[in-house]
Amino acid sequence: MLRRNLTVSGFRASGVCCGIKERDPDLALIVSDLPAAAAGVFTRSTVPGAPVVLSRERLRTGRKRGVIANSGVSNVAMGARGARAAEAMTEMAARAVGCSAEEMLVASTGVIGEPIPLAKIRTGVAMAREALAPGGLEDAARAIMTTDTFPKLASRRVRVNGRSATVAGIAKGSGMIEPRMATMLAFLLTDAPVAPAFLRRLLRETAEETFNRVSVDGETSTSDMVLLLANGAAGGKPLRDSRSRGARAFAQALREVCTDLSRDLARDGEGATKLVTVRVEGARSRSEAERAARRIGNSMLVKTALFGGDPNWGRILQTVGAGEIRVDLARAEVRLGGVAVFRRGASAGPRARARAGKRLLEPEIEIRVDLGIGRGCASLWTCDLSYDYVKINAEYTT
Amino acid sequence: MLRRNLTVSGFRASGVCCGIKERDPDLALIVSDLPAAAAGVFTRSTVPGAPVVLSRERLRTGRKRGVIANSGVSNVAMGARGARAAEAMTEMAARAVGCSAEEMLVASTGVIGEPIPLAKIRTGVAMAREALAPGGLEDAARAIMTTDTFPKLASRRVRVNGRSATVAGIAKGSGMIEPRMATMLAFLLTDAPVAPAFLRRLLRETAEETFNRVSVDGETSTSDMVLLLANGAAGGKPLRDSRSRGARAFAQALREVCTDLSRDLARDGEGATKLVTVRVEGARSRSEAERAARRIGNSMLVKTALFGGDPNWGRILQTVGAGEIRVDLARAEVRLGGVAVFRRGASAGPRARARAGKRLLEPEIEIRVDLGIGRGCASLWTCDLSYDYVKINAEYTT
Repeated sequence: MLRRNLTVSGFRASGVCCGIKERDPDLALIVSDLPAAAAGVFTRSTVPGAPVVLSRERLRTGRKRGVIANSGVSNVAMGARGARAAEAMTEMAARAVGCSAEEMLVASTGVIGEPIPLAKIRTGVAMAREALAPGGLEDAARAIMTTDTFPKLASRRVRVNGRSATVAGIAKGSGMIEPRMATMLAFLLTDAPVAPAFLRRLLRETAEETFNRVSVDGETSTSDMVLLLANGAAGGKPLRDSRSRGARAFAQALREVCTDLSRDLARDGEGATKLVTVRVEGARSRSEAERAARRIGNSMLVKTALFGGDPNWGRILQTVGAGEIRVDLARAEVRLGGVAVFRRGASAGPRARARAGKRLLEPEIEIRVDLGIGRGCASLWTCDLSYDYVKINAEYTT
Repeated sequence: MLRRNLTVSGFRASGVCCGIKERDPDLALIVSDLPAAAAGVFTRSTVPGAPVVLSRERLRTGRKRGVIANSGVSNVAMGARGARAAEAMTEMAARAVGCSAEEMLVASTGVIGEPIPLAKIRTGVAMAREALAPGGLEDAARAIMTTDTFPKLASRRVRVNGRSATVAGIAKGSGMIEPRMATMLAFLLTDAPVAPAFLRRLLRETAEETFNRVSVDGETSTSDMVLLLANGAAGGKPLRDSRSRGARAFAQALREVCTDLSRDLARDGEGATKLVTVRVEGARSRSEAERAARRIGNSMLVKTALFGGDPNWGRILQTVGAGEIRVDLARAEVRLGGVAVFRRGASAGPRARARAGKRLLEPEIEIRVDLGIGRGCASLWTCDLSYDYVKINAEYTT
């Protein structure tokens, strides 16, 4: 989904290297030339980072002009000093852009418990301001990466009120990710005109079905944040509800962009070798289906089997059962890569197993489980658990 | 805790190789010469194995004479055929021992979804019967191993009613282990005289504080089972409640045996290089403390950091926060191996970090977290997550 020169009217962005990390880009700046309607969804962690607390607060009022975001340190668990640092970041960015600090949002991602190096940020903001360009979103996407192996960008063109508009987004993963709420960092931009209240509703609903359906390791970060800015530069009357065709087209485009980014997050999970879609059907209820999908997607036993290309349906049923989720084994079915390996209370035999094993070697896999109880269904995107996950996380800060 | 010639009066045991596995012992038989009071705790999985269903049923009535257990295949998700196989195993054992099938309990552990090879079991039971010996418990412990790297045995001597009695136990792990209920297989034997109702209560309470405090990977097996047989061979009046000194001594001995076995289960978790004790204090309630301990103990991010010897307190606080558990960062504290690395809202600095890092290289580690909210506390035994966990589970059945 990587596109060069991804532009959205009235937005400029940049990503620079200010020295928080040794060599890699670590500071992103996104600016709207017009005050933009803004919405956000945030982590539900009870130990949120200072940027989460500040950005959530700032979104209570008025339009916004942009976002400053750094990678390398997350500004979490830093007490009053962390709160001051987050504020200082928005002040520096606001001064560079020529707006008030209240109009800037802030995000940080990286190591927990180390102070934001404000002198470096100050230098970085000056560089980032100089680098601001309509085509700078990809640089911004690179600057928010931590253990990600590729930058994540997506966009859609959409007709709103007879005018052409764009929805674009960038996101970063790739560990400490489970999405029950918001997830990781994602910044979404559009030049479509959207009223603030409708924007908030759309973002909440869309995040629930996209970012909140990704899990790499069952964790929810302290810094998860999805921001959506709509500056209306495409022109026309603001969308206020979903009754118009333009609003429905916009909602669809937003959902597609978020889906692209969400799948990329799972695909690029730490150490991942496979993008795995878990689909649970036949559950007692939708929430029980979701719980089953999360258990399957987060099970270390299932994830290691997927890494090994092992069509181990036993572990899939086991982890569902361990969640005290209702299953009727006599009617249940497990499909791996489209091949039924367990059906009506019995293993489908060695030939099906061998065929499923081959499918599991592909880079995208679907696990489909029918619990045989009711009509509840839910999906989740996740990845496998490899040696590299252990390597990345055993050696992260040492 | 390995002791040769572990004996309990009136019990004989054996472990033999009947060919379910290629070379290793795979069939255990434990027999009480006298009908024994019996109690069990079982998995809460909604897809329990046939042996779980049958043994639970059998424990509703009367005294028991013994247990037959195999490793290699778990007899799970096998429908009516599985139920018949579990029954057949108890019938074979009962015939060999000279009792009724109703007096025999059964357990199976291993691969899910493959049939019990009854012909092999038949041969095995004949061999196991010949091998029965008062000192055979260690052989039995070996015969129930799957990915365990060592057999798990523990025992205590205790004075009950002025007589000497023994409590002994064997257990096996070592993946698909989380204990919210029962856990894995453990068989506990005592020659102390204990009334059935008191035995059941003691086992339930003891399992809650020992086996149910182990987690290797957050999974609960389909086959978890803890059985306790008390044959009274030591003589004297049966213990009926905890009012006598003998009863308290017995309860204490039982708890110590179960604690030894539980710690060994965590120590021998799949791929484990370290035994980790998680202790959470200062939580709003005991159940919230337990939830925090489970989140910490099951977090892939925390477990990989422990494997890497990385004193990463940020991940510990993050996973607690992600569980929507209340923390007061300004009063919270994290100790690793006795060294405070986070205290009153701030990192304790690089020297403390370095000292904690050294402690994390030891084979037994304690994580102590004070949430700074209330008085709730709870503990959990777990282990780290290493390359070998991935290796063992990526290659288990292929």
